[in-house]
Amino acid sequence: MTDLTDARQPTFILVRPQMGENIGAAARAMWNFGLDRMRVVAPRDGWPNERAVALASGAGRLLDHAGLFDDVPAAIADTTYVFATTARPRGMTMPVVTPEHAMVQARAMLAAGGKVAVLFGPERAGLENADIARANAIISVPVNPDFPSLNLAQCVLLCAYEFRRAGDTTPPEVMELAGTDFATGAEIAALGDHIEARLEEAGFFFPPLKAEGMRRSLRQIWGRLPLTRADVQTLHGMFRQMVRWAEGKRRDG
Amino acid sequence: MTDLTDARQPTFILVRPQMGENIGAAARAMWNFGLDRMRVVAPRDGWPNERAVALASGAGRLLDHAGLFDDVPAAIADTTYVFATTARPRGMTMPVVTPEHAMVQARAMLAAGGKVAVLFGPERAGLENADIARANAIISVPVNPDFPSLNLAQCVLLCAYEFRRAGDTTPPEVMELAGTDFATGAEIAALGDHIEARLEEAGFFFPPLKAEGMRRSLRQIWGRLPLTRADVQTLHGMFRQMVRWAEGKRRDG
Repeated sequence: MTDLTDARQPTFILVRPQMGENIGAAARAMWNFGLDRMRVVAPRDGWPNERAVALASGAGRLLDHAGLFDDVPAAIADTTYVFATTARPRGMTMPVVTPEHAMVQARAMLAAGGKVAVLFGPERAGLENADIARANAIISVPVNPDFPSLNLAQCVLLCAYEFRRAGDTTPPEVMELAGTDFATGAEIAALGDHIEARLEEAGFFFPPLKAEGMRRSLRQIWGRLPLTRADVQTLHGMFRQMVRWAEGKRRDG
Repeated sequence: MTDLTDARQPTFILVRPQMGENIGAAARAMWNFGLDRMRVVAPRDGWPNERAVALASGAGRLLDHAGLFDDVPAAIADTTYVFATTARPRGMTMPVVTPEHAMVQARAMLAAGGKVAVLFGPERAGLENADIARANAIISVPVNPDFPSLNLAQCVLLCAYEFRRAGDTTPPEVMELAGTDFATGAEIAALGDHIEARLEEAGFFFPPLKAEGMRRSLRQIWGRLPLTRADVQTLHGMFRQMVRWAEGKRRDG
């Protein structure tokens, strides 16, 4: 039960999990988002669990380091704040939070030195009321009320995802570039001039009354597109080739 | 391929999926978050797929209504914007967005009358470059770089979750109440007075120099706790009983 990483992170506690496969899948889901502190309370098929190890491929270290406990009070004895995940809060007076809100809260409490845990119930029945009553708050995933059944690993995945997202610095949108920079304004303008000149020769701007509007629309197209230097060269080449082809046609025809 | 619901929603397209189990699990993940428009491109084991139906339990209608296509161009022929999910954008000049950003964008485009699709690649290899090149943007889930392997249904789950979340009106935190209202300020104040009076009799506020500070701390405790009317009655009862017990003791002792 030594920590694998120094990063402040919540401990995910699987309470009376049944299938080893699901424990393994939960370990993978945690590690997908960089979480590695798992505890297991009274797993049905004993511990260690071969099926869990087989399914955890790549995240097996989490299982090696997982703490094993007899009951929930023992598993949360050293924690300062506990979330319980449940599909249907039942007759408890307790805050009910979204996974997003919970994991933002968790980050803040961890940063302040707290020790945060999240309880996940057994596959079939979920957490018992006695377990939920020991928690400080309930995490309820806003699912389709007509089909609310998330499996164990999926619930773990969403909580782990939200914890990572709460501290994530990935920009919402970046432009991926294939080995070349974006064209500069001058390059785009030169491309526009080139294309306009070729189209002028080709008699594209007709009738004259509409020519100015057509020129303006075209220039707006090039300006709006996120063209790279390579794209600009390709477009120059296209128009040069069209002209060559047209000149050849006229010569031959 | 008729729509199951009227709700504006993206179409999730599984491209060359291999295991029927994963197609079924993807259907469940979509329906968990209220999405029901699935298309399938050239599934390895043919269509319909028994394993998919078996695993989709509860979300089988999505499979019944799923469109079957020979290739990606046919599957996206009627769409106006296409996201491709991939772990590793490779040599493409294209916007790369988080699932959150993508699904906020998708909501906006759908609201404006657009038709949005999300491509998911086959389990083992993911989408091919030729498929990705047909998309308008790449969705990349910000995973642990040391363990980035999300399975098909998990990737579908996170995108469906983010789509629902983008339009979700669930408050981040609500206080769940077990059949009773919160106590009013006056009830909390009366409780504080009651407890203070009992503690006064019991000689709790000692030494006198510290008494005022102790009283203040106590009153802050009751004010800070989200106590229901039932809680307040319980606390009144507790203190009444302590007094009864103490009086009995003194009489007997």
